[in-house]
Amino acid sequence: MTQHKFVPPSGAFTRSVPVRFSHCDPAGIVYFPHYFDMFNGLIEDWYTQELGYDYADLIMGSQYGFPFVHIECDFKVPSRMGDIINLTLLVERIGRSSLRIAIVCHQNGIERLCARIVTAMMSLEARKAVPLPQALRDAIESYRQRTTDGEPP
Amino acid sequence: MTQHKFVPPSGAFTRSVPVRFSHCDPAGIVYFPHYFDMFNGLIEDWYTQELGYDYADLIMGSQYGFPFVHIECDFKVPSRMGDIINLTLLVERIGRSSLRIAIVCHQNGIERLCARIVTAMMSLEARKAVPLPQALRDAIESYRQRTTDGEPP
Amino acid sequence: MTQHKFVPPSGAFTRSVPVRFSHCDPAGIVYFPHYFDMFNGLIEDWYTQELGYDYADLIMGSQYGFPFVHIECDFKVPSRMGDIINLTLLVERIGRSSLRIAIVCHQNGIERLCARIVTAMMSLEARKAVPLPQALRDAIESYRQRTTDGEPP
Amino acid sequence: MTQHKFVPPSGAFTRSVPVRFSHCDPAGIVYFPHYFDMFNGLIEDWYTQELGYDYADLIMGSQYGFPFVHIECDFKVPSRMGDIINLTLLVERIGRSSLRIAIVCHQNGIERLCARIVTAMMSLEARKAVPLPQALRDAIESYRQRTTDGEPP
Repeated sequence: MTQHKFVPPSGAFTRSVPVRFSHCDPAGIVYFPHYFDMFNGLIEDWYTQELGYDYADLIMGSQYGFPFVHIECDFKVPSRMGDIINLTLLVERIGRSSLRIAIVCHQNGIERLCARIVTAMMSLEARKAVPLPQALRDAIESYRQRTTDGEPP
Repeated sequence: MTQHKFVPPSGAFTRSVPVRFSHCDPAGIVYFPHYFDMFNGLIEDWYTQELGYDYADLIMGSQYGFPFVHIECDFKVPSRMGDIINLTLLVERIGRSSLRIAIVCHQNGIERLCARIVTAMMSLEARKAVPLPQALRDAIESYRQRTTDGEPP
Repeated sequence: MTQHKFVPPSGAFTRSVPVRFSHCDPAGIVYFPHYFDMFNGLIEDWYTQELGYDYADLIMGSQYGFPFVHIECDFKVPSRMGDIINLTLLVERIGRSSLRIAIVCHQNGIERLCARIVTAMMSLEARKAVPLPQALRDAIESYRQRTTDGEPP
Repeated sequence: MTQHKFVPPSGAFTRSVPVRFSHCDPAGIVYFPHYFDMFNGLIEDWYTQELGYDYADLIMGSQYGFPFVHIECDFKVPSRMGDIINLTLLVERIGRSSLRIAIVCHQNGIERLCARIVTAMMSLEARKAVPLPQALRDAIESYRQRTTDGEPP
């Protein structure tokens, strides 16, 4: 199997996750839905630690939700108990109320899996999509620019 | 939002799943990784109940694995606690060792989400893909034909 | 290891659960927190199917919660992928707002694990315990009586 | 409700866990089986980071398992999304092949929940309990002593 190299862009938001006993299946590798749970945790941490928005406040306080509208994922190299894997979040497109991000899971410079995710910002009360507030949009766009090496939007 | 109608082809493998408290998040809707867990359960039941292969035996006895290579999923209508949702499995393509299936989650004739999944058959010992055994391939092809209304492969 | 026999009392609420790939850990047996998730599902089904109270309505509609206050569990015989295990719910004590139940997991007349659980009925809004409504209390007491072979309370 | 204070003994193994969206249920609080998953993670980290035994190696390499034999847990104060909770592990008794530990979940000096757990060391191949190796036993006993303020065993 061809290995895909991956070096996160400078400044990209990356978090390490230890692969635990509880993540692994009888075949000894990560049971795949756990990756999606890790992705959700990464997005939470990105909002809170990188963008400066408290994710819990956005949801429980302001009553916004960020449901996934679309996800696709290629699984390339399995992970085993005891591995420490890295997850990097990159922004691909900022829509009116939607956000397209990529999450790459990698270790030692090799891609293990790669996901593309579209989320939408929703009002939980009105149960419909709302435009991303300008300040949040600016924070995301600033992150996108500083992690794409100056590429035009 | 446009609603997508879905009527499972006659003979298609469909199972109902109650949406439980434990599936739902603080926004009151199914936390999406649980859908992927439901998909895995559906595939297990399809092997055992429709194809006549005991999934547990294939894995624990024969030491085969069926890891996901690719998945993509569109989330269209959220599900809430107390809903009974239906999952239908359709075969799209049978490769040498891979299988491309679609899983549609629907209720009252309306699509709620739709996933496309590619799995590969692996030897857990050798840690590499193995060709689908002919009898299993035949069982899957027969299912595919009788659930696609006579369409050519 | 001594085996503990278990025959559910006549009329006791019992549901079967298939042990799935996703329940099992790298040691090939059920990862124990999944049992607690099964217990919660059993309690939901018991409210809805046995007591005639729609559990989803109680929570989402009437804004009640039934948090666990105490749980204890003895794990006696591990379960493996492909096993069909049975879960039986018995009522031990009905308090003012609390309920003590036992859940026994068994197969072929042998106990696999046994849990004792105390739940309390809470108002989600007021965030405090509320007395069990009389009609619900009566339904639970009736269930208790008909599954304890005439024993006095 | 009476609040229970908790100050971990000096040197006790404590890890913080952020309460995530994915941990919480429609009532907005941690769905209780997730606590048990957190306990398992804490035990893993304790073996690896405190005792100096690589937990993944013990399981996947040496083919040992540490199944739970008994657990009991009192839930005192619920936790909500965005909380950072602390988990402290204490050793209560070291048996021949079993280990009794307590795990206290606390925040700001107040106990949120408290669990007592008995695990046994098993050979996964022989499927029976094995005595704790002397070096591991010594490491655990040393931890017990230095976290119980000189109390006799």
